[in-house]
Amino acid sequence: MTPFDVLLQQIAFIHEIDKLKYITRKTRLFNSNRHENDAEHSWHLAMMAMVLAEHSNEPVDVLKVVKMLLIHDLVEIDAGDTFLFDTVLNHSNTEAERKAALRIFGLLPQKQAEEFLHIWDEFEAGETAEAKFARTMDRLEPLLQNVSNEGGTWMEYNVPFNRVLEKTVGIQNGSQTIWEFAKALLDSSVEKGILKKGEADV
Amino acid sequence: MTPFDVLLQQIAFIHEIDKLKYITRKTRLFNSNRHENDAEHSWHLAMMAMVLAEHSNEPVDVLKVVKMLLIHDLVEIDAGDTFLFDTVLNHSNTEAERKAALRIFGLLPQKQAEEFLHIWDEFEAGETAEAKFARTMDRLEPLLQNVSNEGGTWMEYNVPFNRVLEKTVGIQNGSQTIWEFAKALLDSSVEKGILKKGEADV
Repeated sequence: MTPFDVLLQQIAFIHEIDKLKYITRKTRLFNSNRHENDAEHSWHLAMMAMVLAEHSNEPVDVLKVVKMLLIHDLVEIDAGDTFLFDTVLNHSNTEAERKAALRIFGLLPQKQAEEFLHIWDEFEAGETAEAKFARTMDRLEPLLQNVSNEGGTWMEYNVPFNRVLEKTVGIQNGSQTIWEFAKALLDSSVEKGILKKGEADV
Repeated sequence: MTPFDVLLQQIAFIHEIDKLKYITRKTRLFNSNRHENDAEHSWHLAMMAMVLAEHSNEPVDVLKVVKMLLIHDLVEIDAGDTFLFDTVLNHSNTEAERKAALRIFGLLPQKQAEEFLHIWDEFEAGETAEAKFARTMDRLEPLLQNVSNEGGTWMEYNVPFNRVLEKTVGIQNGSQTIWEFAKALLDSSVEKGILKKGEADV
């Protein structure tokens, strides 16, 4: 293939991923009633990773973390957004997401498609230092948004403290410092009454 | 400062930059009537840089290019969006943008604030290999959008061929291959009648 042929394949991918801007999340912007979309979310997480990398428990390749975060939700173009606190669907690596990854990354030239699929798998597995830190960003953003939005999705969907804790405790896998901060935010949210302890939490 | 103090400053910045999601551009999404916002735009450009880096005229540090693109429009939180084809305002480094950069990056710990300001300056100056390639991405995206949108802002604001050419020719500074592709798109847009030659263009 000539560089021009390669470019044409890449442009088809760039065109396709515009659809990420239509995927609406349950969470809302920091000071607004408008729901966030996946492209905005991905941009914000990549910014957070750039800014917060020094707090990672282990040294990380920042470019790899940023790549992970920029692409981590592309599968939702086909598979749709899964709510973090959904009690039925498990977000991680559903069959629909895997199929979506193969189709969407498959638009790219083969070598690049394989690279992106590998990065996405690594993020989903959450085992490397980069994946752990990237996943910490993905958990931190909705926490900040909910605190900023008078409880946000916690209040809207009646998500009790222990369920929130269960979904945020993984922050410590990426950063102990950020986890200390997150834990303090959760505690102050309970004090403010924007995060409720359920019956099982007492 | 303790790592926790550093983190608090960084979180204030992360909170502030949410406002980029409210800055509306003149261009619209690839297949939609909705205007794009600056956060979506920044995400898309960073993705494009990751995917297209091999076409850069000179080898580039991809992380630096991605950083430039993720932050390049943050100044618009204070200074507002400037339309590429605006005939009065010059987009580059207005006094309002400089003041915005100092305020917004100034929320970060000093060393990081200086790093971000430096990267933004480098992007605006457009002289390094990374800045040239980043600026190529910034010119390519609206071109793709306008072609995808039946002429988009070219038709909506009656922007003639020569003015579009003048604003897109800089693509070749970052990538000769992408410029060949862009030039072919412009020519086919004229043929399709979605980009008009003005009186001065004949």
